[in-house]
Amino acid sequence: MITVLAGGVGAARFLTGLTAVVDPADITAIVNTGDDVELHGLWISPDVDTVTYTLAGAINPETGWGLAGETWQALDALGRYERARPSGSRAGATWFGLGDRDLATHLYRTARLAEGARLSAVVAEIAAAWGVGVRLVPMSDDRVQTMVTVDEDGASTEIGFQDYFVGRHHDVPVISLRFAGADDAHPADGVLAAIRDAEVVVICPSNPLVSIAPIRAVPGIEAALRAARERVVAVSPIIAGAALKGPADRMLAELGHDVSVVGVARLYAPIASTLVVDDADADRAGAVEAEGVACVVVPTVMTGRVEAAALARAVVGAR
Amino acid sequence: MITVLAGGVGAARFLTGLTAVVDPADITAIVNTGDDVELHGLWISPDVDTVTYTLAGAINPETGWGLAGETWQALDALGRYERARPSGSRAGATWFGLGDRDLATHLYRTARLAEGARLSAVVAEIAAAWGVGVRLVPMSDDRVQTMVTVDEDGASTEIGFQDYFVGRHHDVPVISLRFAGADDAHPADGVLAAIRDAEVVVICPSNPLVSIAPIRAVPGIEAALRAARERVVAVSPIIAGAALKGPADRMLAELGHDVSVVGVARLYAPIASTLVVDDADADRAGAVEAEGVACVVVPTVMTGRVEAAALARAVVGAR
Repeated sequence: MITVLAGGVGAARFLTGLTAVVDPADITAIVNTGDDVELHGLWISPDVDTVTYTLAGAINPETGWGLAGETWQALDALGRYERARPSGSRAGATWFGLGDRDLATHLYRTARLAEGARLSAVVAEIAAAWGVGVRLVPMSDDRVQTMVTVDEDGASTEIGFQDYFVGRHHDVPVISLRFAGADDAHPADGVLAAIRDAEVVVICPSNPLVSIAPIRAVPGIEAALRAARERVVAVSPIIAGAALKGPADRMLAELGHDVSVVGVARLYAPIASTLVVDDADADRAGAVEAEGVACVVVPTVMTGRVEAAALARAVVGAR
Repeated sequence: MITVLAGGVGAARFLTGLTAVVDPADITAIVNTGDDVELHGLWISPDVDTVTYTLAGAINPETGWGLAGETWQALDALGRYERARPSGSRAGATWFGLGDRDLATHLYRTARLAEGARLSAVVAEIAAAWGVGVRLVPMSDDRVQTMVTVDEDGASTEIGFQDYFVGRHHDVPVISLRFAGADDAHPADGVLAAIRDAEVVVICPSNPLVSIAPIRAVPGIEAALRAARERVVAVSPIIAGAALKGPADRMLAELGHDVSVVGVARLYAPIASTLVVDDADADRAGAVEAEGVACVVVPTVMTGRVEAAALARAVVGAR
């Protein structure tokens, strides 16, 4: 039994590697839903979908999100309304990429939630419809929203995560983060048991601040991870001081963290006993271990399934 | 100033003819929203969309609904979830045709309603985005749902209009109709004035029982029509005892009405002073007039814009 904490693209790629070395039926992925967004009346779960589509072999390999061979008729047609909408309205927004086939996922999820189904049940149904063998569980059935306070031309504004990530192309300074609703949220069924019962808990190479932190913010999960610390192995998303993808490096710096594997080690030291870092950071292994975290040095760049599987093998064997 | 009461396809075609003989800026269409449906979390207004797309010249000419050149990727992809959904769930339903470009309309409408916009404002925005010059007004901003009690294998079941019309292909016996919410609904802004101030009020060749009756059921509209009766001209959707399209003929019979222009005259006599019937019903003109309604006999089959314009000219000149 292996349990992983997952964000989006990096986690999805790691999971494809993990399924090559561990029976998918023995894998549980606890997925961040802090970046879920409601748009056009639809409930959209970007990280869950990225993990699902990737494990189904249906992901767009160029973008890392969305479906391969996607069409964009609906979004294109939405442009007509966006151009005509009243000032102040956000309806008809085309800044968030919704492919035609991807829309079906959001239509189904929204309809099931409207029927009263729990998000975790819907996540499982969608994964099953795609033939995904890994057990996917959202961190919570409750709404937790990652809110980002950004500096725009000197004024601080709090916006939703997707407004920051997609709408602003994560290209504005971040002042602070907040996980709205987290205090009242409960872990989804099976989350705490999956952490408690796993031989290894893997923190995927995801953004520690906006992919893993929302999961940790759901009451009960942080404590479960601390109790499991000796079995928790994290993979650094920072390689040689930079993120392969996304704003993790910039965000770490803006929020006062060390933009290095040492900074990652500090963030994860309370919950992880081992940090896997890339060969490029071999000279930092001592500094990582000085944070009280064992350091394993291996290639961590997942250029393909072979590399992802090798990384997964190293991570599972790291303790 | 001409005001029309409109259902879907027949009304839309009549309106294309009317815009050829009257300045579109002088036309107000009060459109049925009793067959609006919420599906997948989206608010769908079939009659309004049919009228909008038709007046925009964008309608699929073969079906009479939906957009020309439409693609169906989202609906196709939804099939994956429909096949996998739990028993009892209606999520992932593919029985209601939602084209990819058409979806944009529902996404925009849903987002605007969620922002607190009134339906009538959204209808006007969508029409403007399509360059429609006719003023389109939903009968009400409030939710009125046409409910159909049908006989299925001897058991009577009340279902929503689209469940009957699309889901059952209007191929089950109708026992009764109800307009849920009508008693508490208010006419949309401008509806009563449009009836009061029009030189002619046209009841389009729409289904009297499920396209026009829901409009009449909104408190205040029936009284306004009765007060305007001398200026109200109806066009019979029944020609030689049959409907050109849809279940009007069958439904009239099932609900105890005469399936003829005389039956239509009886239904409209309280609110219309003139009924326009097709040449095929010339021999019924006397029977129509015996119901207290003047009868105008002209060709009413709108095979194209030319015929629609000729019909519109006759209707506007009928009083």
